Amino acid sequence: MLSRAFIPQFTWWQHPIAALNLPCQAAAVARQAVLTKPAGALGQLETLATQLAAMQGRAQPSLTRPWISVFAADHGITQSGVSAYPSEVTAQMVVNFVHGGAAINVLAQQIRAKFEIIDVGVASDTTALPTVIQAKTVCGTANFQHTPAMTLAQCEIALQAGHAAVQRAIAAQTDCWIGGEMGIGNTSSATAIASCLLAQPAVQLTGAGTGLTASAIQHKAQVIQHAIDQHALPSDDPVQVLCGLGGFEIAALCGSYLAAAQAGLPILVDGFISSVAALVATRIQPACRDWMIFAHQSAEQGHQSILHALHAQPILTLDMRLGEGSGAATAFHLLQLACSLHNQMATFAEAQVSQQTHQA
Amino acid sequence: MLSRAFIPQFTWWQHPIAALNLPCQAAAVARQAVLTKPAGALGQLETLATQLAAMQGRAQPSLTRPWISVFAADHGITQSGVSAYPSEVTAQMVVNFVHGGAAINVLAQQIRAKFEIIDVGVASDTTALPTVIQAKTVCGTANFQHTPAMTLAQCEIALQAGHAAVQRAIAAQTDCWIGGEMGIGNTSSATAIASCLLAQPAVQLTGAGTGLTASAIQHKAQVIQHAIDQHALPSDDPVQVLCGLGGFEIAALCGSYLAAAQAGLPILVDGFISSVAALVATRIQPACRDWMIFAHQSAEQGHQSILHALHAQPILTLDMRLGEGSGAATAFHLLQLACSLHNQMATFAEAQVSQQTHQA
Repeated sequence: MLSRAFIPQFTWWQHPIAALNLPCQAAAVARQAVLTKPAGALGQLETLATQLAAMQGRAQPSLTRPWISVFAADHGITQSGVSAYPSEVTAQMVVNFVHGGAAINVLAQQIRAKFEIIDVGVASDTTALPTVIQAKTVCGTANFQHTPAMTLAQCEIALQAGHAAVQRAIAAQTDCWIGGEMGIGNTSSATAIASCLLAQPAVQLTGAGTGLTASAIQHKAQVIQHAIDQHALPSDDPVQVLCGLGGFEIAALCGSYLAAAQAGLPILVDGFISSVAALVATRIQPACRDWMIFAHQSAEQGHQSILHALHAQPILTLDMRLGEGSGAATAFHLLQLACSLHNQMATFAEAQVSQQTHQA
Repeated sequence: MLSRAFIPQFTWWQHPIAALNLPCQAAAVARQAVLTKPAGALGQLETLATQLAAMQGRAQPSLTRPWISVFAADHGITQSGVSAYPSEVTAQMVVNFVHGGAAINVLAQQIRAKFEIIDVGVASDTTALPTVIQAKTVCGTANFQHTPAMTLAQCEIALQAGHAAVQRAIAAQTDCWIGGEMGIGNTSSATAIASCLLAQPAVQLTGAGTGLTASAIQHKAQVIQHAIDQHALPSDDPVQVLCGLGGFEIAALCGSYLAAAQAGLPILVDGFISSVAALVATRIQPACRDWMIFAHQSAEQGHQSILHALHAQPILTLDMRLGEGSGAATAFHLLQLACSLHNQMATFAEAQVSQQTHQA
């Protein structure tokens, strides 16, 4: 495998992350304190508004143009019997995305998000589908039970696919980045990456994915643990971990988060797979965490540990475990409500309402 | 105090509760099983859709016309120093509701809900505010530390105010009932009612309300416990508990839930105060629980116990503790998303996607 040092052109992700606007955040916090409600009574809706103020550099933030890019890829690890669905479902779901029948299509329409689908490594040819953006180097990762999932060159092209998607989103003047993924087998890849980066045994993080039985989950955990032990990847080199354990959609999501954070674009992180991509991104550049809002806690075993490692308090806990960006799209409206409340509520002075008197 | 038996005209709440449509629910469950996603992967969004199918009597439910009635009243118990805000804030917030500056106004606009405010016992005169519906018998409850909060006749008029609001909502063809409340001191009243009905010590259920310190919470719990001990109310007579411990907005919410359940109108229950009203309603007629969806878990101490008693799994946990119907209005959009996903996603057959193959 090539060492990163030999590919200097692929170092855009080392460029600095945008800084939050802390004076705007302070102004937003001050405003929250004088709105006609007990201090803190809107809970997480208050902190979301003040976080967005810091990201957008204005005391009264708003979100109107969400963007969703779904990255699709296949996984060699499915050959090891780790998934409830056959590999061909990845390509079938890409067709479903194109025709508008998937959950994320419905949600994108409901939240009026721009939506695109990118093939970063689907096993079959998707070029006949004109709206699918082509960005693949190979038809799926290698089976990481036996060999590294991808080469460094392939990984960097997948990271770049995420970067390119963010550039399209910015050109379309988006104000909220949502990445989604589709890839049969990708909970195995994500679990392996998380297990490696967090130095936690695979058995603690391995879950049902699309719907495995208890014994199948046990088998999946063994496959993952065996692969991790075999590769002996350096947990302080997140890109090498990504290369070793895949997958292309996870690398693309990771690249998109880095690019969005560099551009100062708020990121709404979806569920388990996306959070692992976010974990990789923060290991590459810790500051990109500033730009991430975590949409939901997935029902997938292991997500809680990853959110904990990211110091993330997700907005929703609805036992969702679909991926595609569906949890993020579901939570998006709550960010809009947080902004509306922040901007449109009357202050105590405006409404001539008495403030708190009794604290004894 | 009059016994209920002497006021036969006020027994509308004993009329039968509407029945859920179980065949439609079964059809909705069957549809969820063939949508292009792993079974159960949309978590609570799936159960919300199937619940609404049972309520609306159609396999493909939808919600488009939410209605919010906010009931406002004052509480004699505030004389015992149990609230962080002075009593006059109730009337000031009624003015704020009329002028559109409160959280619930902003949320009502965002979810396109019809909104009305009803005075069921505000301490000062609100008749100068033309849009406030007048339904009060007295300017606030008596201080339940010393005497019963209201007479049975007053309670029944407050219950009737809830019934009347639901009739207005139904006349306007609403498809989702949201009740809200405003009343400085009402967490004390609600806590006392819950403590009595659940036979739990007040100290376990008493919280910060609008923002008390730890020592003030302790005082509040003592006041509540002392009152409960003194009144010795029969916990199997929910109307008498309501009369003893108040308040008028809680009685009105309770009446609205019974009336909505009788009419077969889906109810989205807000937070702590509303859940106590829901608890009283289910103690009057257990079947009305069928029509309730619980919007959020409040940050108010005690809410979890009440939700547990109601076998309720709330949609949101955002640490909100504002009341006004704000948590319900915040959750409403998720019900709409649940319906959209249920109705608009493609089935496996439509999208020609392979179903689950591996369960070993």
